[in-house]
Order: sequence, then C-alpha cells, then structure tokens
Amino acid sequence: METDRLMAKYLIETAQEPERAAAVMAGEQSTGTFVPVPGETDELRERAGARVESVRVVGESGAPALPHARAAGPGGVYRRAEVVLSWPLQNMGPSLGNVLATVAGNLFELRDFSGLRLTDVEFPAAFAQAYPGPRFGVAGTRRLAGVEGRPIIGTIIKPSVGLSPQETAAMVRELVRAGLDFIKDDELMANGPGNPFPERVAAVMEVIHEEAARTGRQAMFAFNLTGEIDEMFRHAEMVERAGGTCVMVSIHSVGLAGVAHLRRHCGLPIHGHRNGWGALTRAPLLGFEFTAWQKFWRLAGVDHLHCNGLRNKFWEPDDSVVASARECLTPLLGGYTVMPVLSSGQWAGQAPDTYRRLGTADLMYLCGGGICAHPRGVAAGVASVRQAWEAALAGVELKEYAAQHPELRAALEAFGQ
Amino acid sequence: METDRLMAKYLIETAQEPERAAAVMAGEQSTGTFVPVPGETDELRERAGARVESVRVVGESGAPALPHARAAGPGGVYRRAEVVLSWPLQNMGPSLGNVLATVAGNLFELRDFSGLRLTDVEFPAAFAQAYPGPRFGVAGTRRLAGVEGRPIIGTIIKPSVGLSPQETAAMVRELVRAGLDFIKDDELMANGPGNPFPERVAAVMEVIHEEAARTGRQAMFAFNLTGEIDEMFRHAEMVERAGGTCVMVSIHSVGLAGVAHLRRHCGLPIHGHRNGWGALTRAPLLGFEFTAWQKFWRLAGVDHLHCNGLRNKFWEPDDSVVASARECLTPLLGGYTVMPVLSSGQWAGQAPDTYRRLGTADLMYLCGGGICAHPRGVAAGVASVRQAWEAALAGVELKEYAAQHPELRAALEAFGQ
Repeated sequence: METDRLMAKYLIETAQEPERAAAVMAGEQSTGTFVPVPGETDELRERAGARVESVRVVGESGAPALPHARAAGPGGVYRRAEVVLSWPLQNMGPSLGNVLATVAGNLFELRDFSGLRLTDVEFPAAFAQAYPGPRFGVAGTRRLAGVEGRPIIGTIIKPSVGLSPQETAAMVRELVRAGLDFIKDDELMANGPGNPFPERVAAVMEVIHEEAARTGRQAMFAFNLTGEIDEMFRHAEMVERAGGTCVMVSIHSVGLAGVAHLRRHCGLPIHGHRNGWGALTRAPLLGFEFTAWQKFWRLAGVDHLHCNGLRNKFWEPDDSVVASARECLTPLLGGYTVMPVLSSGQWAGQAPDTYRRLGTADLMYLCGGGICAHPRGVAAGVASVRQAWEAALAGVELKEYAAQHPELRAALEAFGQ
Repeated sequence: METDRLMAKYLIETAQEPERAAAVMAGEQSTGTFVPVPGETDELRERAGARVESVRVVGESGAPALPHARAAGPGGVYRRAEVVLSWPLQNMGPSLGNVLATVAGNLFELRDFSGLRLTDVEFPAAFAQAYPGPRFGVAGTRRLAGVEGRPIIGTIIKPSVGLSPQETAAMVRELVRAGLDFIKDDELMANGPGNPFPERVAAVMEVIHEEAARTGRQAMFAFNLTGEIDEMFRHAEMVERAGGTCVMVSIHSVGLAGVAHLRRHCGLPIHGHRNGWGALTRAPLLGFEFTAWQKFWRLAGVDHLHCNGLRNKFWEPDDSVVASARECLTPLLGGYTVMPVLSSGQWAGQAPDTYRRLGTADLMYLCGGGICAHPRGVAAGVASVRQAWEAALAGVELKEYAAQHPELRAALEAFGQ
C-alpha cells in the first residue's frame, strides 16, 4: 500500500452492481456530486479523486438491511461487498476530523446503499507527525500504577451516582485497602452538583495519598472530567496538582477535537470511555467496526480504551470483544499501543478465558458488581479477582485454585453458573 | 413537566415486559449495575435514581430489529414501546456532554433491547444559563447576509476538492456575480495541503470585498474550519480579521465540546454541517431521531444546521426532512432558533413544495449541481432558483412562471422529470 494515500475499507450492501456503487462512493466523497459539474476535469479527477482500490463480493441478501435504499428489481438481490477506497492526503491533510468527514461523512446517507459500514482505515505516515498519540500507553500506565506482570485490576465507584465527595472518598479508602490497583468514576459521574469535581478530587486524593504513605504504592484513580474544554483543562490541572495519576473522558461526549486538545495539554494518562458506542456499531450493516473507530481515538491520544469484556452484560459477542482488545494492543503507525480496558459484568470467572484468548496480561480488568457485591465484601471481591488471575497466569483451573482460596471459591459460588 | 429534571424519550424494542425493560434502562443509567450493590439504598435511589415516567406499547414484531438481544421465547414477540425516563439535574448538572453520556450512553448496548432509539430530550431550564445558544440564529444571519423576506440562496464550491485557493476565488467571483447570497466550502475541503485555509481565506475574501464594493451587499462565505481546537481558533480569527461573515464546522468531526468552545470564542455565525449523521439515524430502531440530536448542537451554539432537502439524493424521506427543518425553527429553552439548511440534490424544482410544507422562508436553500450544472451556466442556475422561490412565495405554479423566465424553464427541462 502507498503510504501517502488514506485508505478506507467498507462493507456495503447494494442493489446495484457493486463496482458501480463503489464508484458512486468515491465520487461523492471527492470530486463529484449528483450531476457532472464544469471544472471536474479528467486532470482534477486524476489528481484529487478518490480511487476504488478493490471490490470483492462477499454475499447477498433477498431483503435490504436498511430501509429507503434504491430497491432491487423483481427477483433481484442485494449484494454485499468489501470495498477499499483511497484518497490523496492532499485533499484533507493529516487532520483526524477531516478524515472522518471524508471516510465516514455523507456516504452513510446515499440511497445507492442498503448497508454501509466502515470496517477499517489506514492512516498515512504523516499522521504520526501530526498526532503524538498516547502519552503513556501500556508501559507508562504500568509505571504509574506500579503493576507489572499481571493485569491492572480495577473497579468503578458504585453506586454510579448519588454519593457525595466524602462518601466517594470513604469508598475509595475501602477499595484501596482491599488492594485495588485502579479505581474510576462511573461515566455517569463527572461534575454534577451532587458530587462536584473539585471537592471529589480533594477528598479522594487525600485518601489516596494517606494509603500510599502506608503501603508505598499509589492506587490510580481516573477522575471523570468530561465537560466543556475550559472546564476539562481546569480539572486536569487540578488532578495533576493534587498528585493524581489519571483522568477519564467520555470520548463521544467530548469529541475528537476535544480529546486531541486534552492530550496536548494534559500530563496524565487519559482513560477513554466509549459509552454511546452501541449506537454506532450495533446495526450490522451501518456505522463502524471498532477496528476502524478505535484508530481515531488512539491517534487523538487516549491511553486506555474500553473494549467491553467476555460474557459481558451487553449485547456484544466474545469474538468481537477479543478482536477489539487485540486491536488496542496492535501498534498503530509504527508505535502507539493503548491499554485495552475489559469491563462490564466482569468478575473472577472470566480471567482464564480472557488470558487464553488475548495471550497477554497487558490489560485493565475492571469489575464493578463483581467486586463490590462479593458476598464477603469488597476486600474479598478484590482477592477473588487477584486469585483468578494468578490461576489464569499459572495455567491452573479456577475450581482447583479455589480449593485453597476461599474468596475465589465464594465468588464462583455467588456469580458462577 | 418539572423543569429541574432531565427528560428523555425513547423508542424501544424488547422481548421482556416493556415496564421491566424500562426499569433496567433507568437502573443502568443511574444508580444500578448488573447486581445489587451495597450503598444503593432506597434513600439514594429515591434521590439520584432515574425515574420511569411512562411506558406506552406502540407495536410488536416477530423478529428482533438488532441481533444478539435477549431472545423472545417460542412464539414470543418483541414489543415496541415509547418510554420516557427522567433524571435529577443533580446527577450530571447542566453539561451537554454528561447529558449525552446519561441519556445515550451504555444503554444502546444492553442485551435487554433488540432496538433502542433516543427520540427526544427535554433540557431543564438551567441549560439556558449554562449554554448561550446560537449567537446569530435566523435574524443575525439574515442581517449579515442582507437577505429578508425570502430564503438565503446558496451553493457549495464544486468540485468539492481539487481546486487551488486562486481557483476557488475565481469561482467565488462567478458565483457572487451570479447573485448568490451564500457560498460555502464543501465538507471535504478544510485545510488540506491542496487548498490551505489561510490562502483560501485571503483569496476568497479579496474577491468578496471587491464584489461587495461594487454591489453594496456582501455575500456570506462559510469557510470550513473543521480541525483541531487551536487551529480552529486561529482560523476563526483569521476569517474575522479578513472581514468574513461565517465559518463552518463538521459537527461530528469536532464534537460537542469543540463546537461549544468555538461558540464561546468566535464572533461569527457557525454553519453546522451534519455529515456522518446517517450512521446515527439510518437504522430505524437504533441511534437518534434528529429531534433529539439537533437540540445538543443548538445548545452548543450552531447558527445554521443541515437538514437535507426535499427529494434529496440521499435515503431520507421528505416527511423526515420537513420535521427536521421545523425542529430547527422551534424555539429551544424559550429562545434559540437556528437556520435550517436545506441541501442535497436541490434545484429550482423543490422550492414550491419546500415553502408549502415549511410555511416559512426562514431557511437556507443550497443547490450544488442544481446551480453549477445549469445548462446555461452558473448565473442562469442562480436565476432559476431565485425565480422558483419568487413563484413559490407568490403562489404561482413553476411551469406558469417559467413561461416568462427562461432560466427557470431551462432548469425544469434539464433537471425535471
């Protein structure tokens, strides 16, 4: 592949000839419109036009996946194809936002398609200069959290909302004492009047420092600073000044430009929460594959990125979760990797399969209810997850390991099938 | 409705009892998780929990709209219901990004739903203090464009990409001389190396000023400054200093925080381009209705918002376009309205129906090919659209009006059925 062209891969469904449909995509997203216009010369089209690199039919359907598309004739079919398009970097330059408008703009709306999904993007090398990527990534996060050789085990403050700063801090004390490496705000908790960000930072960091003084290791707390640009900056500085080691953003709430801006000006790892992702991916023939989507946010500079977890409480099948986590660990533009965050319905039970399928311990493993609702309390909940990962890394069956580890045994009894 | 609670309306599809499913939504998006946790007391739930305001079954289906949902039993059905939830403002405060995480976060991913779509949001009055809304809106835009009593007629620079700044400026001269009120960059053209923003502003504004000196009226040009935060600020200032009267952003590329930040610091109308919208709305039981979505961007502060157009080149039915444009003209939080931008496959032909269905001329009517590809050239293209709107506003049939107006006649012959 040429490195000076932007490449994008799609899954399409169309009643037309797939080659013809791919040409419509290329025209619409570069030099064309619904009728030929003066000035769209052959020379200009050659220089600035998007190019159809390949079209491969992969299946067909008797009915359209999305409504209001141009219909197939009687007895006609809707063909599905994998399409690769490319653009000269000259058109949009190394700009994430303008790449998004180019590869994932108006074309979702074209009537020529009864399905259109962006499955992958390849960014030209110029993006590595324009975007510094994650400041900390896997190695930097491990260093700050003081955890090597096993996953970073974490939890989310629950109940998600309704606690005061002091109640949050009291819970943090319990969680840190229970041995957690990482604690985060829920995405529902940022800077509401019920738990204002500044008061939460003050109360929580006091506890974190006290506990660190006792144990010699500082737990990482991801403060959710999702908000307006000026507010996020103020709050990121506040966390840095208070000696905190992580901030969190709801990436879809803040947007690409906001996250990239935060990355440039904030000296802490950015924990990227993908809430809202379901709307972009859950219709199989619309929107985005995570493979494509995560590259935008990694270039923008998140250090951690949520990937769901095995046997999660959501709709997503395990294969998709595994693929997403693997993507996060695949170097982008020759360098950047980010910490995949496995979360949602996680408890001790998924540790062996998670390790078996990912083949690495470079991940964050977050349990909410799986720790906080452990029948013997939070400390036992943390112990059960630690024990499950010890077993997984040692290649020992959970049930076998549980014989000598009562917290794990209690977790298997409470949460197992 | 209480004014201190955030309200959100959804269309859901579920194999469960709809009331039970609505309770899951409320729990997941406020105090609950997949198991009961200590600390989620009745008092806390009462104070901070989301409330199910209403559930109304509206239909059913024998098959799930989205895959991987919890299945209905044998012979079971998937019920569709309209659900209204509410939250105390205490949880998230008057913050657009955190409202988004609350009303449109993880719940799209819940396995309990084979369909979930946000159809409307009602923001508490506190948002009117926190977000100033559009700086210019309908009246301010009309004033800057010097157009009253009829739509602002505009076009998009085509070819979208491939022109140099000088070529763009030459085209702008032709378009202004042809009588256009408004010209915009394409969303594919922002600050690429082939047409750098600063050079384009300089070249285009020189032409705009020369023509304004001649005619006494300055055409409005929307410069697409979509990009990084610092870059957008620099560019907005550049346009202001050069005497320009509008900037454009691809709202999904920049994000809510970026657009709200731009609004606070930029003294020009913001032309909001919604490219990428199709991915969020085209699956009927996923994502967002425009009714809900546009409120976020209007609060963030766009002055103009794209709504597609009648008989557009995209998938969207006319009823949906009309509803979207009407929403833009419905005052939000007691005040703000924005200019609906009707665009996509537009030419003279849709003017009468657009006027008949919207009942107002407070809109921007953009024709790309419908002006630039007019058989007698651009000036005739503009004349044809002006004539069509004269006819529409006077209640005269286009064909009748065309008898005395050769440009309109030529447009009907070239683009009509």
